Amino acid sequence: MPNDLAPGSSGQAGVAQRGALHGVRVVDLTQFEAGTSLTQTLAWLGAEVIKVEEPTKGEQGRGASTDKKGVDSHYFMLLNANKRSVTANLKTEKGRALLRGLIEKADVFAENFAPGVIERLGFGYDVVREINPRIIYAQVKGFGQDGPYKSFLAFDMIAQATGGAMSITGEPDGRPIKPGLTIGDTGTGLHGAIGVLAALYQRQFTGEGQRIQLAMQECVINYGRISYAAQALWGKAAPRMGNQSIMGTNSPSETYKCKGDGPNDYCYIYTSRANPQHWERLLKIMGREDLIGDARFDSPQERFKNRHLVDEMIAQWTIHHDKMEVMQRLGEQGIPAGAIMDTMELSNDPELNRREIFVTVKHPVRGDFKMPGWPVKMSNSQVPITAAPLLGADTDEVYGKLLGLSKDELAALHEEKII
Amino acid sequence: MPNDLAPGSSGQAGVAQRGALHGVRVVDLTQFEAGTSLTQTLAWLGAEVIKVEEPTKGEQGRGASTDKKGVDSHYFMLLNANKRSVTANLKTEKGRALLRGLIEKADVFAENFAPGVIERLGFGYDVVREINPRIIYAQVKGFGQDGPYKSFLAFDMIAQATGGAMSITGEPDGRPIKPGLTIGDTGTGLHGAIGVLAALYQRQFTGEGQRIQLAMQECVINYGRISYAAQALWGKAAPRMGNQSIMGTNSPSETYKCKGDGPNDYCYIYTSRANPQHWERLLKIMGREDLIGDARFDSPQERFKNRHLVDEMIAQWTIHHDKMEVMQRLGEQGIPAGAIMDTMELSNDPELNRREIFVTVKHPVRGDFKMPGWPVKMSNSQVPITAAPLLGADTDEVYGKLLGLSKDELAALHEEKII
Repeated sequence: MPNDLAPGSSGQAGVAQRGALHGVRVVDLTQFEAGTSLTQTLAWLGAEVIKVEEPTKGEQGRGASTDKKGVDSHYFMLLNANKRSVTANLKTEKGRALLRGLIEKADVFAENFAPGVIERLGFGYDVVREINPRIIYAQVKGFGQDGPYKSFLAFDMIAQATGGAMSITGEPDGRPIKPGLTIGDTGTGLHGAIGVLAALYQRQFTGEGQRIQLAMQECVINYGRISYAAQALWGKAAPRMGNQSIMGTNSPSETYKCKGDGPNDYCYIYTSRANPQHWERLLKIMGREDLIGDARFDSPQERFKNRHLVDEMIAQWTIHHDKMEVMQRLGEQGIPAGAIMDTMELSNDPELNRREIFVTVKHPVRGDFKMPGWPVKMSNSQVPITAAPLLGADTDEVYGKLLGLSKDELAALHEEKII
Repeated sequence: MPNDLAPGSSGQAGVAQRGALHGVRVVDLTQFEAGTSLTQTLAWLGAEVIKVEEPTKGEQGRGASTDKKGVDSHYFMLLNANKRSVTANLKTEKGRALLRGLIEKADVFAENFAPGVIERLGFGYDVVREINPRIIYAQVKGFGQDGPYKSFLAFDMIAQATGGAMSITGEPDGRPIKPGLTIGDTGTGLHGAIGVLAALYQRQFTGEGQRIQLAMQECVINYGRISYAAQALWGKAAPRMGNQSIMGTNSPSETYKCKGDGPNDYCYIYTSRANPQHWERLLKIMGREDLIGDARFDSPQERFKNRHLVDEMIAQWTIHHDKMEVMQRLGEQGIPAGAIMDTMELSNDPELNRREIFVTVKHPVRGDFKMPGWPVKMSNSQVPITAAPLLGADTDEVYGKLLGLSKDELAALHEEKII
């Protein structure tokens, strides 16, 4: 299924240079993050993702937390790279006809409007399936759509609250804390991508599309899976553990203050219960060979019992060393250790840039913008990352080439403010 | 590609009852969580996942944090449902021959040993590809395998430290906090599943397998994507925001203490900047209609400027109401609100049980065990969840049916302790 419109395919020869989803076309009605991260993932795997947007302001994320009125936000750019943008006023019959035309030629349809909105727009699953029975129709909502909260609105924080994430994050004696990662949003989008990919594979054998439904609350629960082992072990709800491991039976398993007075001058140090050598190696590096064999620390159980002594001893050593030095010295000796890295340190890291975990895209208005890339490295699927499209950047080309509209027809639709 | 061995396929008729990955066979060399969550995902989509384990103790996760010595841990059960288990001593030539036999008949190979181990075992990518060029070979490590930390060990917390998660989680004036969700582990496993699924799709057109490589640090960065918008906006590393939204420009966007003295008697309340009605509706519910139109609160900017007043006012109301009542009253009026739910409340929730977000499996030793299920609901792919296998439960059947070993041959291998 060759596809002249796919970004990343032009000018490249040979299958190995293509993305895995080369030839897959996605009609993208998503906004903000939970939906856009789903279609962003598909775009980074090589699918042609066509955002269909309201013609005057476009998708709401364009204006969300922007520093320059009328200029697409960084937030939007992070979630809509490698996509195309067309406009269609779906409140008009002509606008809806354009969307129907796209659906006829698409493999995937994705939306994350508030509950009930897509049906009111006239593009519920039953309608879309009738237009194209091969389509995979993916929907992200806050809560299960046959339950008591089906009509409730959700944002990332609501999903993290109701999905258990906040109950298990924070200091043991503190209030519930929201993880800074957007597990309710991007975490759900990635689950959606899994569903769509599985359905694309299945369609090769069945010839039929299907419906994929995701609830943000429920996807957050999946990331908290291990807490249910802690609950089973202790017979009560999993508590907040500060920085201890979830099962709470390990020492050391902590962040230790390092040299410096920055908010992130800490290093996490962990020794596995399964590998007693970790502890001995750590003692040697700290110059505490005298404690090798000491009964207070000589088994995971004893170390855990005496964890306050363990923590104190390690902290007295780390405070004299830079966090990166601590990580380096422990890591090269085979002890699990990780400096607390902040977003600036990460985005400036030369290795992460070389590996394209951070990439710089050229945006037509903002110019160069550095953003996180796609971390799944596939030997036969490479898709260069390109900047998010301006509103309607691909309207004429997509409607012209894909739907066969003439220049005159396009001009009339512009005139009527339908596109 | 019919497949008599796939769990979930026996006794079911028709494609609609099958999993999306029916017929896909996975050779699973993973352990603990980052790898097992990858293959768990594939199993829940209907693949036949065959764990290949060391014959005496099996995969290390079986004994990790178990409360009963010799009985598989809850942790293991959570990550290995719907899989099969065979044993093979890979330190013997006969054991390696068995694994080679499985690889010949497999679609996917997955491993997450410490760096260098799989190559030393003799099953690096080059070897496995030669045995089966169609195989998709997925590897999870802590860090990029061509960078300075390539040999460093990683566990979930190390990935969360070095991937930026901890730097953006916690109180603004507190230390970095580890999210309780295992984003370094399961978060990476889900990225791996995306890579494998995309490669399976691509293979339909190319006929060739490929290599998928994941670094836990890098996958954590992807979940922290939005922080890079905050960094771009402010020109400095994204800070810890307590429970505020990441962009930190919204009010209310907080957890509010509710009635009761449990550690999770809080409700998150959020009003979108994009929808001014949220705030007005909230004032009405709190009986503060008098403040509608008050200049101090009449725009997102003003509310944010006066956020301490906003927080105080809301907290004075919520403290008199149960968290579930607060969520219910706000949610049904279209205001985003989420009670902080703990793991016990979630696993006891009748709706989440009915929707099979929690399922009870029957384990041959532990009996009934309730665990989180798979949250991606697909209309044409249903896979009932079954308990994790005992060590070697499927050894004879798999080697017999798939590799054609006779009863005598199997008996000899048992005798020699190779299986």
